[in-house]
Amino acid sequence: MKKIVQYLLILFIVIACKENTATKQDEATTVAENTDPLPSWKDGDTKNAIVNYVNAVTKQGDQFIPVMERIAVFDNDGNLWSEQPAYFQLFFAMDRVKALAQEHPEWKTTQPYKSVLEDDMATLMSYGEHGLIEIVMATHGGNTVNEFEQIVKDWLATAKHPRFDRPYTELVYQPMLELINYMKANDFKTFIVSGGGIEFMRPWVEDAYGIPKDQVIGSSIKTKYDYNDGNPVIRRLPELNFIDDKEGKPEGINQYIGRKPVFASGNSDGDLQMLRWTDSNTYPSFQLYLHHTDAEREWAYDRKSSIGRLDKGLDEANEKGWTVIDMKNDWKVIYPFQLEK
Amino acid sequence: MKKIVQYLLILFIVIACKENTATKQDEATTVAENTDPLPSWKDGDTKNAIVNYVNAVTKQGDQFIPVMERIAVFDNDGNLWSEQPAYFQLFFAMDRVKALAQEHPEWKTTQPYKSVLEDDMATLMSYGEHGLIEIVMATHGGNTVNEFEQIVKDWLATAKHPRFDRPYTELVYQPMLELINYMKANDFKTFIVSGGGIEFMRPWVEDAYGIPKDQVIGSSIKTKYDYNDGNPVIRRLPELNFIDDKEGKPEGINQYIGRKPVFASGNSDGDLQMLRWTDSNTYPSFQLYLHHTDAEREWAYDRKSSIGRLDKGLDEANEKGWTVIDMKNDWKVIYPFQLEK
Repeated sequence: MKKIVQYLLILFIVIACKENTATKQDEATTVAENTDPLPSWKDGDTKNAIVNYVNAVTKQGDQFIPVMERIAVFDNDGNLWSEQPAYFQLFFAMDRVKALAQEHPEWKTTQPYKSVLEDDMATLMSYGEHGLIEIVMATHGGNTVNEFEQIVKDWLATAKHPRFDRPYTELVYQPMLELINYMKANDFKTFIVSGGGIEFMRPWVEDAYGIPKDQVIGSSIKTKYDYNDGNPVIRRLPELNFIDDKEGKPEGINQYIGRKPVFASGNSDGDLQMLRWTDSNTYPSFQLYLHHTDAEREWAYDRKSSIGRLDKGLDEANEKGWTVIDMKNDWKVIYPFQLEK
Repeated sequence: MKKIVQYLLILFIVIACKENTATKQDEATTVAENTDPLPSWKDGDTKNAIVNYVNAVTKQGDQFIPVMERIAVFDNDGNLWSEQPAYFQLFFAMDRVKALAQEHPEWKTTQPYKSVLEDDMATLMSYGEHGLIEIVMATHGGNTVNEFEQIVKDWLATAKHPRFDRPYTELVYQPMLELINYMKANDFKTFIVSGGGIEFMRPWVEDAYGIPKDQVIGSSIKTKYDYNDGNPVIRRLPELNFIDDKEGKPEGINQYIGRKPVFASGNSDGDLQMLRWTDSNTYPSFQLYLHHTDAEREWAYDRKSSIGRLDKGLDEANEKGWTVIDMKNDWKVIYPFQLEK
């Protein structure tokens, strides 16, 4: 808003210096109005709801929200990038188990590692959340934060998604990239609030989404600073620090941001508390759920999925009139590589 | 600084519309060069070191630091505002003990509360860190985060500093306000990294320093989200979560920012680990220590002070050539209210 005011002020001054200014000013206005900030979103209720909200709260009036209060939070898995056939971080953890297997000969005969080494997803999944946490702890600790960042980057540079045979970072949603940019252009400060590992996300979110590392909230393990004889490092310990899911999301938002968001975007029941927290803002707020309805271009899942289950959230969205994206019908394309060149 | 740049831009455009622009443009440039971004700092080595660093790393060249990497961290107590005769948050906690005393009749006969109720600082201090933490836990938990924010604001609106008889928020350092603005104008993202309570600082740092709430790192207690029958709250629990001091500072920086700073400013041995962490950056980095040398206008203390002890840090600063502010000789004024009107 400030930038717009400044821009208009400068524009006004330039125009005031010239003759026949009216025509030029009209041209500039028309160009601005014709530029669609969300070109990959089909016209319709969903897109209108978003644009109407942003217009209402950024213009002076009774809906106006001061810039400092414009906090927008986005879940990541299944909301900014895909999460099927399993969370991408699980593929990373499985590849880490394989990479570290030589140092751990006992894994060949110990579950849940054995099932990873044998690519036996069914058995792995039977160990449930406990088994997955064990794998994450065994593979995500033990390095310095710098080393871990490099490990993530190296993995992303070579690993391919099993269905699309492309790097995982290419499976971000084009319409959501446009939404993030649109919010930023309207002076919203955009944060990722994800159940995924904070240090798994930070190495790539700046390139992928244009969201700075310090605007990422996620699950974390404990760390310890070590002076290390004058070469300070921060070591990653195999101990859980914080789970940024469900109730953890508003708690994490409070801990990191210290301010209630006005805009929240998620896709699962794990985001419900974050959406409720945002909905309780005294400023006009916006709650957005992404419903995975596109079995052909992406995946279709909701109430019965073990990954990204959207059940209570869908009911509450309907009750409260929150906006629900119907992926199949609201999005022209899913991924950036599908854009016509 | 940004406003000055914008003002100059507008000025330039107006001028560009007229004849004889060359002369006018030269005038504008001269004004810009003559504008001192740090007017409350005396000319000399300290000011030169800061300005030379900022100039070197923001211009294209072998010292250049990309904008995303320009992270500047500032300790708060004794660095951005005063911390004598005791940390200001301790005065807050003591006032909370008095305000809550009616609900806790046992405090009249139980230490360390008894010494607080009797204004017996000597006895209170004899209970050391353990006693202080007990008082903070007893007075900082039990509310929702919204309630606590209001309690802090109400306290700041009425409480007066014992020596200066002014609100505590007036005891911020004018030269440091200028430094923060100078860094921001040069695209540094500025963070507070304080041993003080994160939720004690957030209610006032935006007004006092122009640093957003989400760019504050501090010590914290645990919190818990509660749906509360449709009126969600986050409750503050009487349980320590994180101590953002000494080794905790680089750990907190990693947790919240996820990136090593290039500029660190502190005043005590509790900041040493943060300065060392910054010093290990592969980009050119700057370490700044504020030495309290002004017994007349502020306070003079260093190696033997129980508050804000600067001992090992002072030795290491001398060894490593870090910049040390001599408050008495480097600063023209201490507080904004001392500025000539």
